[in-house]
Amino acid sequence: MKKILIVNGPNINILEKRETAIYGSISLKDIEKSLIALAEKLKVGVDFFQSNHEGEIVDKIQNSKSGRISGIIINPAAYTHTSIAIRDALVSVSVPTIEVHISNIYARENFRHKSYIAPVVIGQISGLGIDGYLLALKKLGAVNINNAFEIG
Amino acid sequence: MKKILIVNGPNINILEKRETAIYGSISLKDIEKSLIALAEKLKVGVDFFQSNHEGEIVDKIQNSKSGRISGIIINPAAYTHTSIAIRDALVSVSVPTIEVHISNIYARENFRHKSYIAPVVIGQISGLGIDGYLLALKKLGAVNINNAFEIG
Amino acid sequence: MKKILIVNGPNINILEKRETAIYGSISLKDIEKSLIALAEKLKVGVDFFQSNHEGEIVDKIQNSKSGRISGIIINPAAYTHTSIAIRDALVSVSVPTIEVHISNIYARENFRHKSYIAPVVIGQISGLGIDGYLLALKKLGAVNINNAFEIG
Amino acid sequence: MKKILIVNGPNINILEKRETAIYGSISLKDIEKSLIALAEKLKVGVDFFQSNHEGEIVDKIQNSKSGRISGIIINPAAYTHTSIAIRDALVSVSVPTIEVHISNIYARENFRHKSYIAPVVIGQISGLGIDGYLLALKKLGAVNINNAFEIG
Amino acid sequence: MKKILIVNGPNINILEKRETAIYGSISLKDIEKSLIALAEKLKVGVDFFQSNHEGEIVDKIQNSKSGRISGIIINPAAYTHTSIAIRDALVSVSVPTIEVHISNIYARENFRHKSYIAPVVIGQISGLGIDGYLLALKKLGAVNINNAFEIG
Amino acid sequence: MKKILIVNGPNINILEKRETAIYGSISLKDIEKSLIALAEKLKVGVDFFQSNHEGEIVDKIQNSKSGRISGIIINPAAYTHTSIAIRDALVSVSVPTIEVHISNIYARENFRHKSYIAPVVIGQISGLGIDGYLLALKKLGAVNINNAFEIG
Amino acid sequence: MKKILIVNGPNINILEKRETAIYGSISLKDIEKSLIALAEKLKVGVDFFQSNHEGEIVDKIQNSKSGRISGIIINPAAYTHTSIAIRDALVSVSVPTIEVHISNIYARENFRHKSYIAPVVIGQISGLGIDGYLLALKKLGAVNINNAFEIG
Amino acid sequence: MKKILIVNGPNINILEKRETAIYGSISLKDIEKSLIALAEKLKVGVDFFQSNHEGEIVDKIQNSKSGRISGIIINPAAYTHTSIAIRDALVSVSVPTIEVHISNIYARENFRHKSYIAPVVIGQISGLGIDGYLLALKKLGAVNINNAFEIG
Amino acid sequence: MKKILIVNGPNINILEKRETAIYGSISLKDIEKSLIALAEKLKVGVDFFQSNHEGEIVDKIQNSKSGRISGIIINPAAYTHTSIAIRDALVSVSVPTIEVHISNIYARENFRHKSYIAPVVIGQISGLGIDGYLLALKKLGAVNINNAFEIG
Amino acid sequence: MKKILIVNGPNINILEKRETAIYGSISLKDIEKSLIALAEKLKVGVDFFQSNHEGEIVDKIQNSKSGRISGIIINPAAYTHTSIAIRDALVSVSVPTIEVHISNIYARENFRHKSYIAPVVIGQISGLGIDGYLLALKKLGAVNINNAFEIG
Amino acid sequence: MKKILIVNGPNINILEKRETAIYGSISLKDIEKSLIALAEKLKVGVDFFQSNHEGEIVDKIQNSKSGRISGIIINPAAYTHTSIAIRDALVSVSVPTIEVHISNIYARENFRHKSYIAPVVIGQISGLGIDGYLLALKKLGAVNINNAFEIG
Amino acid sequence: MKKILIVNGPNINILEKRETAIYGSISLKDIEKSLIALAEKLKVGVDFFQSNHEGEIVDKIQNSKSGRISGIIINPAAYTHTSIAIRDALVSVSVPTIEVHISNIYARENFRHKSYIAPVVIGQISGLGIDGYLLALKKLGAVNINNAFEIG
Repeated sequence: MKKILIVNGPNINILEKRETAIYGSISLKDIEKSLIALAEKLKVGVDFFQSNHEGEIVDKIQNSKSGRISGIIINPAAYTHTSIAIRDALVSVSVPTIEVHISNIYARENFRHKSYIAPVVIGQISGLGIDGYLLALKKLGAVNINNAFEIG
Repeated sequence: MKKILIVNGPNINILEKRETAIYGSISLKDIEKSLIALAEKLKVGVDFFQSNHEGEIVDKIQNSKSGRISGIIINPAAYTHTSIAIRDALVSVSVPTIEVHISNIYARENFRHKSYIAPVVIGQISGLGIDGYLLALKKLGAVNINNAFEIG
Repeated sequence: MKKILIVNGPNINILEKRETAIYGSISLKDIEKSLIALAEKLKVGVDFFQSNHEGEIVDKIQNSKSGRISGIIINPAAYTHTSIAIRDALVSVSVPTIEVHISNIYARENFRHKSYIAPVVIGQISGLGIDGYLLALKKLGAVNINNAFEIG
Repeated sequence: MKKILIVNGPNINILEKRETAIYGSISLKDIEKSLIALAEKLKVGVDFFQSNHEGEIVDKIQNSKSGRISGIIINPAAYTHTSIAIRDALVSVSVPTIEVHISNIYARENFRHKSYIAPVVIGQISGLGIDGYLLALKKLGAVNINNAFEIG
Repeated sequence: MKKILIVNGPNINILEKRETAIYGSISLKDIEKSLIALAEKLKVGVDFFQSNHEGEIVDKIQNSKSGRISGIIINPAAYTHTSIAIRDALVSVSVPTIEVHISNIYARENFRHKSYIAPVVIGQISGLGIDGYLLALKKLGAVNINNAFEIG
Repeated sequence: MKKILIVNGPNINILEKRETAIYGSISLKDIEKSLIALAEKLKVGVDFFQSNHEGEIVDKIQNSKSGRISGIIINPAAYTHTSIAIRDALVSVSVPTIEVHISNIYARENFRHKSYIAPVVIGQISGLGIDGYLLALKKLGAVNINNAFEIG
Repeated sequence: MKKILIVNGPNINILEKRETAIYGSISLKDIEKSLIALAEKLKVGVDFFQSNHEGEIVDKIQNSKSGRISGIIINPAAYTHTSIAIRDALVSVSVPTIEVHISNIYARENFRHKSYIAPVVIGQISGLGIDGYLLALKKLGAVNINNAFEIG
Repeated sequence: MKKILIVNGPNINILEKRETAIYGSISLKDIEKSLIALAEKLKVGVDFFQSNHEGEIVDKIQNSKSGRISGIIINPAAYTHTSIAIRDALVSVSVPTIEVHISNIYARENFRHKSYIAPVVIGQISGLGIDGYLLALKKLGAVNINNAFEIG
Repeated sequence: MKKILIVNGPNINILEKRETAIYGSISLKDIEKSLIALAEKLKVGVDFFQSNHEGEIVDKIQNSKSGRISGIIINPAAYTHTSIAIRDALVSVSVPTIEVHISNIYARENFRHKSYIAPVVIGQISGLGIDGYLLALKKLGAVNINNAFEIG
Repeated sequence: MKKILIVNGPNINILEKRETAIYGSISLKDIEKSLIALAEKLKVGVDFFQSNHEGEIVDKIQNSKSGRISGIIINPAAYTHTSIAIRDALVSVSVPTIEVHISNIYARENFRHKSYIAPVVIGQISGLGIDGYLLALKKLGAVNINNAFEIG
Repeated sequence: MKKILIVNGPNINILEKRETAIYGSISLKDIEKSLIALAEKLKVGVDFFQSNHEGEIVDKIQNSKSGRISGIIINPAAYTHTSIAIRDALVSVSVPTIEVHISNIYARENFRHKSYIAPVVIGQISGLGIDGYLLALKKLGAVNINNAFEIG
Repeated sequence: MKKILIVNGPNINILEKRETAIYGSISLKDIEKSLIALAEKLKVGVDFFQSNHEGEIVDKIQNSKSGRISGIIINPAAYTHTSIAIRDALVSVSVPTIEVHISNIYARENFRHKSYIAPVVIGQISGLGIDGYLLALKKLGAVNINNAFEIG
């Protein structure tokens, strides 16, 4: 059975308290519940990880190999724009990865428009809320990642 | 029944002849066939449009209102980075829109990293191939766009 | 009798549907009606043209010579900031031209602050609504353009 | 009766001695005479002020309230590009204001293309010579500023 | 007895009329009254000066030596971002100086983020309203400026 | 009783060993002792926290709500210029916050002139040494934060 | 027999009316006549295309494959500096292409110094007038393109 | 007899109190005495003017014509880098002008390296102390300005 | 006996799994073994530290004083380009330090060309693989650091 | 008989040893042989010069007048992007000049995209290999340079 | 007797042939003759050197010590803007140096506005023609360089 | 026997006279003596070359092949930052090369932070004084360059 690691970066753990004008009222728990439900359907395992520490996220990504992780969904939050260390970790393990942002980062401050992560992953989903995670899970959990046409 | 407009920009019509190292061998026809299949499942209508002309894309978007379009999926291709006119058209009609890119634009030339479109749409999916379109269709075709949790 | 060409760029045809916070509720028809009324007073002819296509605007400008046009009022809208082709066309025909913007482009997004057109025309009027067009028409329709003092 | 304040910035007082290739041979006196003539027609009062001192212009603008000024026409000349103080003064009094430039500032040196004033006024007229002032007076002197259609 | 010069730049004299969303409803008079009250407590003299003229502010600062000024509190307002002359004056007299801004200049337009004054003074207080002035007065009025611990 | 959280960022724990030309010989202990003394006078509680870890600072700020913190004084030190995560945490908890810097950051290297924190807090105090903390405490500890006039 | 497509961009159709200080008095007809004469000598076919529409140029380039085109000479004129769509079309068809400019674009405005086209073609000829086209034709019409030494 | 106007900008009046590491201990009086002595030798008149006010310097320059001034020596000090108004005034009167700086502005802060004045005057002398003024006087006071070879 | 601290930043712990085209197949263990061998020869002690956490690296550097460290070799990896905190820590302890990079950072992405660390250390060695560490150890372990000529 | 000077800059003398992926296997000798053959046909003389020294190239260009040179073909190689001295020399002698680059400089590193030479010569040919030189020779060797139509 | 070295950079040897609109018709010989005449008056020796080679200028400056040179007048011409080597040479020998430009470099192309030389010399004279050299000679040849008041 | 070429750029020949605060009192002779001593130990030959001429350095590097050079140590000094010609020469000969700087170039002026050479050599050593050369020699003189572990 495939196992997918879902990494959430700083302040996602208090998402429901953050700028509600931007994020609505969803919480990390909501996200995780939705992903578990979909994972069961897809018959893939999920491993959740959230941290406010750049270094812990790097550690976790490094361990993805020994953890037999076959895909990573990462919402690096604030570290999207400042962490070369997370980028380097992703390149090191070369596990298929999709970057997800709950809000549309291109409709926010200028410094949120540049991602150190995007150039080294498969792709990026921005602004689709929880659905961004779900869609990424379907893609990474598909039998044939490059041809996940059966989606639907 | 909801109707979703799918707009493809310049050179997507010869996708299968383009840089295969970047796009693989999929064609616009492949994309459309997959979308039709999904649309039937979702019970939504789809309206395809491809043009190499910036002005024709603007015209088409403007007409989406009279065409009773309830969502737009747009891959503006090269115009992503140069067309303020398409951005203005999208803002004018204010139909829920998702921007899709087959390849990961953030892993390509610098001038492809900036989108005039992204700040005025719901969100952007980049690098997920045909699946980007399918995912966008599920989102826009959902009964409740902001809470499309039932996806799966 | 003098004939003045009035060119409106992309999305001006659906002006009344655009961002009303910025443009109010005026429509292209309103603009044209006002201009016709003034033209009659001034005893000049007017030729209206609107297009969402950069190329069609270039064509129209080129034809202004054979059309015996003695002045051009142009609101290039989104093309103001991206079209060198329209600039080159205006330089080629060297008909006296005034650039008009309904809204104050300097109070909007940064990318709307630069005009490719402004350096090659007589002048620019920005933010005065329909009056911008009317004022331009009085200027271009005056017997002596450089000394249109009789205005009032 | 409405009263309109007309502010001219540095070196406009010796306009007729300035770069005649750019400004022609008009003088500040010419401008004032034309405005007085038009004001009489429009039945509005005009109050002229010229200064080479940034601080005096700020003072004058501040006093516009107590002076029962209902509109300001300002040609800030060189201070257009360097004075945040004049901008702040205009914002403070919030009297409807139009920025005027005799020459087309966008066809001159790069440092004249940026205006600190433009983003906080109704609009800007550039390159139309004396007519720029006259047109601004008609707009500000109109009974209904937002709908000065009766111009002609 | 120590004497502290309090310099306020352009438009602070009409503060209560300025953007109330940003400044609230305090006036220069309010600021001066608060400072006088505190000065009495601290047993220091205060000398108020406000001007909209860059040159007058330079003059005043230059005279601080002959005026036996032992400290300067300056809110250069708009000149913060444009006046090298005021900076040079402060360096010339080398009186201990603190820069104060009523609003948080770092939460406003980009051009207000850079101060010509900050690099040549003891420090800067931004966004604390009238309190910024009071705090600066306590600091500069302290017996031992570098060790004003007794504050409280 | 109000409780104020005082957060100090990296290397403040060895302040007395750092560049003495810039910081003098004060130590974190000195700062804390002064703040305790003032807190007793003001009858507010203080909670001290120092960390060299960006993630731990984010954690601490997040916990300020459950800790019934009514104000935050933060000297983010090096993280001022690099941490979007701390900025996001401050926005999430929306506790009134003042940013403090012991040295005048605007008189140091260019990369210290930009703060990610300043735009999302009440205000910033830079260059006033220990007094910066004390002043911030008086402000945040005041009965009426927006009107702490009684300071003195 | 080889067939070479010659594409001319916006405003080249009224070349003889354009800035004669820059272009002299040659016309598109002159260019075509010269090319026909040379083509006959070289025994290659030529296919002329001019358009002011970016989209039509993209269409034409796309069709070059089905049209059995073995080389493209393109003067994209204004689109040189703004069209990623034309660049992408050229990359898609991968027909050997040479970019030609009648005037020396490096001796004109700054915005004409950057070409989106140049990095994806064989080479660029700038400033040699009609001869630029003729030389490109000789190169592309040669039996052995990479070794067209017999030229002369 | 020729008359030369010598204009000194802000803070030059307290030169002997300014950064002595940069300027040494010379005063404005010293400069004027040296110039008077030289002027007598050269049999030219000198007219001294110093102001901290940008506007007054503009006024003075404007008056140079009526004052029968045949040359201007200007040390605009801080206004060198911020005043377009002084530049415009110099262009307006078109009196032969030399820009002088006591210190070497190119060995100081970056913002002192750019002069708005330099592009519109005959030349600039920087870093030669009082001698800069003397040399400028010899040049402007020469019978034949363009050929002042007899210097020595 | 001298003791040298060797600090390795994020992802160096999985070096042998990282981009082998850039780093070859050496591992952190290899580096440590080589350094131990050389340290024995040089009769200096070595203290190894690796962390993916910026804060832990700051902690470790701060402790170098109490740990009687006489030199630091640091490969900050990704933190080279983003950590002002590590820079500040190095400045605080002022232990002689050499910065080492296994790969040639100047032949990689642009964002790796700038080091926050380099300006505050003795020097930098880039691109020499393991030898970079060895050379740094010889330099720092030499009896006379400034004159380590006996190397060989 | 016309004489054309052909100047080749640094490293062209070892062209066949340079990056063969970029330049192929042609050598300077090959280039010269081709040019001699064409020159004989055209009945013009050729004068070859290659140097790795910027100064020698300047010397050579200066001497072109006394050498009765009627045209210059220059491939400044690396000096294209760094030498203002060569640019100035070309302007001084004002001999008709064409700039040639064997490879397409616009498809290489960013620093090769800017030429100091291009703005002061007739035109530039880039990316056409040896043919670039031949074409330039035909142009400069033509009886009527501005009308070299007879080419073919 | 003092000896002054006069260094002229590239293309000054053909000054009379260069852009006469900028330089007039003076030649290097004219400059040298004038300097010799003045040197005799001042009773100082002069040593002339001109080269188009950056390296030769560096060599010459290095030799100024052994040549007992007490001052250098340098017109680095094109190397002003590109040569760090000449700058370093001047710093190495630390002979009092004045930089001279015949034309006003600030009224020419942008790339001529920046000098690598200016920050490391006493001062710069720009735009005063031959007089620039003469003035520099008087300054450097004076008995007391810092107080050359006796000029006149 | 291996032979290593050691190239030193401009002003290194007078190193002992240069800024001693930066370089100490070492001379080129000192560097060469140390290298000869090490070379004898390593049983490799050394070939010294110093020049102030960019072109001579290019010539020397080109000749390294015929001179059977197996490694190059280069300190390009000022040419590090300005010479594309030296970069191209190094790429052409493709001899293993190490770039050395005596001082820490990253702790000096901004313009010394960018190296044209670094991206095309094995690596760079900066700030280690003479030891930089010695270390480079050990690396290049090792039997197995990529695995010079035996160092010590």
